[in-house]
Amino acid sequence: MSAASQARRRQAADDLEIVAFERGSFTSYSACGIPYFVGGTVKDVSALVVRTPDAFRNDHLIDARIRHEAVELDVARGAVCVLELESGGRHWEPYDELLLATGSRPIRPSLPGADARGIFGIQTLDDGLALHRTMADNPRRAVVVGGGYIGLELAEAFRARDMTVRLLEKADQVMPSLDRDMAVLVADALREFGVDLHTEEPVVGFETSDGRVRAVSTEAASYAADVVVLGLGVAPDAALARGAGIALGDAGGVRVDRRMRTSVDGVWSAGDCAEKWHRVARRWTTIPLGTHANKEGRVAGINIGGGYATFPGVVGTAVSKICEVEVARTGLNEAEARAAGFETVSVTIDSTTRAGYFPEAAPLKTKMVAEKLSGRLLGAQIVGREGAAKRIDVAAVAVWNQMTVDEVLNLDLSYAPPFSPVWDPVAMAARRAAPLVFDDAS
Amino acid sequence: MSAASQARRRQAADDLEIVAFERGSFTSYSACGIPYFVGGTVKDVSALVVRTPDAFRNDHLIDARIRHEAVELDVARGAVCVLELESGGRHWEPYDELLLATGSRPIRPSLPGADARGIFGIQTLDDGLALHRTMADNPRRAVVVGGGYIGLELAEAFRARDMTVRLLEKADQVMPSLDRDMAVLVADALREFGVDLHTEEPVVGFETSDGRVRAVSTEAASYAADVVVLGLGVAPDAALARGAGIALGDAGGVRVDRRMRTSVDGVWSAGDCAEKWHRVARRWTTIPLGTHANKEGRVAGINIGGGYATFPGVVGTAVSKICEVEVARTGLNEAEARAAGFETVSVTIDSTTRAGYFPEAAPLKTKMVAEKLSGRLLGAQIVGREGAAKRIDVAAVAVWNQMTVDEVLNLDLSYAPPFSPVWDPVAMAARRAAPLVFDDAS
Repeated sequence: MSAASQARRRQAADDLEIVAFERGSFTSYSACGIPYFVGGTVKDVSALVVRTPDAFRNDHLIDARIRHEAVELDVARGAVCVLELESGGRHWEPYDELLLATGSRPIRPSLPGADARGIFGIQTLDDGLALHRTMADNPRRAVVVGGGYIGLELAEAFRARDMTVRLLEKADQVMPSLDRDMAVLVADALREFGVDLHTEEPVVGFETSDGRVRAVSTEAASYAADVVVLGLGVAPDAALARGAGIALGDAGGVRVDRRMRTSVDGVWSAGDCAEKWHRVARRWTTIPLGTHANKEGRVAGINIGGGYATFPGVVGTAVSKICEVEVARTGLNEAEARAAGFETVSVTIDSTTRAGYFPEAAPLKTKMVAEKLSGRLLGAQIVGREGAAKRIDVAAVAVWNQMTVDEVLNLDLSYAPPFSPVWDPVAMAARRAAPLVFDDAS
Repeated sequence: MSAASQARRRQAADDLEIVAFERGSFTSYSACGIPYFVGGTVKDVSALVVRTPDAFRNDHLIDARIRHEAVELDVARGAVCVLELESGGRHWEPYDELLLATGSRPIRPSLPGADARGIFGIQTLDDGLALHRTMADNPRRAVVVGGGYIGLELAEAFRARDMTVRLLEKADQVMPSLDRDMAVLVADALREFGVDLHTEEPVVGFETSDGRVRAVSTEAASYAADVVVLGLGVAPDAALARGAGIALGDAGGVRVDRRMRTSVDGVWSAGDCAEKWHRVARRWTTIPLGTHANKEGRVAGINIGGGYATFPGVVGTAVSKICEVEVARTGLNEAEARAAGFETVSVTIDSTTRAGYFPEAAPLKTKMVAEKLSGRLLGAQIVGREGAAKRIDVAAVAVWNQMTVDEVLNLDLSYAPPFSPVWDPVAMAARRAAPLVFDDAS
């Protein structure tokens, strides 16, 4: 819908007819807000919806049709087959320019009982509403499967409702996008907030009765569950593109150039389904994140509308709040940096969100990963309390600009006691990393 | 003392004797914390002191002598004349390497009564202690002269003590480092928090009796005052350098190269007294700020200790919290950019600190100034509520790297509902500025 809006800004309705088909019941909503709706922080689902189909139709002359699923694409004919989910009818819709913004689908394990009622994969607002409706029955015991962002945010949401929450993760840490030494801090915080966390405990099945989940089984135990959430990650939903012979990339998403063009003339792609160029790893990735989707949609829409815009890729920035703990990362963590062929040095420092003597100064830990030979900043991770995480953006911009740690330590970052120690935590980490950079071949 | 510590890290006491002379009674303290001590947010003055002379002596083998004022410098002899303030005695101390870190002095107006008791210029912790002692008499009426950072922070401090606070500013706005349209927001906030703000009202004199200030006079009125604070800015304290024939710059500070060397061999300078290279204005400036002083001291100390380090200059980043309002800026504001010869475009946008639907989403306004012809980001200003100001660092790093607004809008900044709208305010401002960049010569 970002693309549609941008195209409309450049082309009036007489010059460009814009039709949008949406499988679900909503347009332009904050998927990232779903955990806060489930947890009760956001009271009304309408708060998550930026613009309704009616608003698109009336204010932007964009014909947004919900509950319409694009099921087949014929790029030779220039038409897409649309299934009207309410009536079951189908029709072929011709196009001059087509944007594939099919998003991603939550990964479901192929395990016994995985399709039972009471097991939720959270991707769309319809998913969020379904889970929210279940909350009305006052479930007492939740099991979250998978310790990534969405899993942890939902663990918090259930704790916010005072439920018993068990989190099962097959790996040896939560938050796989953090290095283990930083992820441990998140795990500690989860336990502190009453989440019963089990790592290295993969789920082997779901116990059901009457088609409804009753428990989650691992090799170790069976955990009774009134509600189960799957936080096993998502995969790009590229089925429509694949079916039409449009090139996919190695990461499984639609391959796009920097103007968001696919391999087929007149077909564009943006959002979770499209691959993103990772500027540090120097490879194509899929990163399901609203802010990328929004920017890519803008670029696609400008181009479809006859303008010129490019999307320059990502550096892997992410942030989350889990109970009282703020977590953020950008660039590459140590493991990712090594996988990308970098020889690394890294430091972890303790600091505070305000001058140490200032009331409400909160602790934060900053980890920094740099290339050993050049000192180039490759990535950073922050775990801390209120006021910690958004500082990752300093590192994100520094990584974006390929700054070295000795450049970062001298950055002119804002300082006043209510906001920072005299050495900003990011600058302080860079200062500690600088002497580790290869500087003596003797 | 940053320099002394760094030099000591590289040279043991047997190789390098380090003596520090300090006119005042404290070493290594947070001057920026003084308003919070005066206002009562910080209860104990010792909290502002990072390291005492004893700690320097015992832990770092640095001979830090307080109440010792360097009054004359003879660079030909390589000696500095030190006045012992307690005894009145003087001696010449020889040196191999000398660091001038004489800081700055508050500007005092040459007006009748300006030296009366009850009138405070706040620069050193001794100044802060003197003002704090006055607070014990429960003064009821404060007049603050000058609406810069320190003036506004003290206005807040007095309001925190429930005093009647009047702020007199000769210019037509407070916060001269902000553009007027942004400074107006700060003025509104000051008034909302009960500060009686008078702009375009210069002070013409101070009414005194028994050597003590009783009122502050302007052309318009006479304002009764139990305590007066001067917030008229500071000037680099370069008298010692000037007296020794060391080159000063056009901004009145000690001229230094990027290793913090002055024009005289073996004499170094760092901190408020030393000029700083402004990377955007491309001129030497004086900016009295602890974070710069600290970084410069580190560089000087590494070099004095036999290492190699450089200070790359500043981009004019500053931040302050005035009552509930957070204010920040970086780079050049519109007026400064024009003065520096840039043709500018600028935008101001309204946004929120969290997703709009998230509880405690607070308003913030972001102004962005860019070069019209290139789109290069020249500066940014932020005024908002809690969670607003520290975002200026994103703009600071972008300005540092000479990014253009169309690059800034696509930056990979962290996004999650508790931290930001899906378009980060800084990215959003860049997005609005991008179309204004010169792009069509027809």
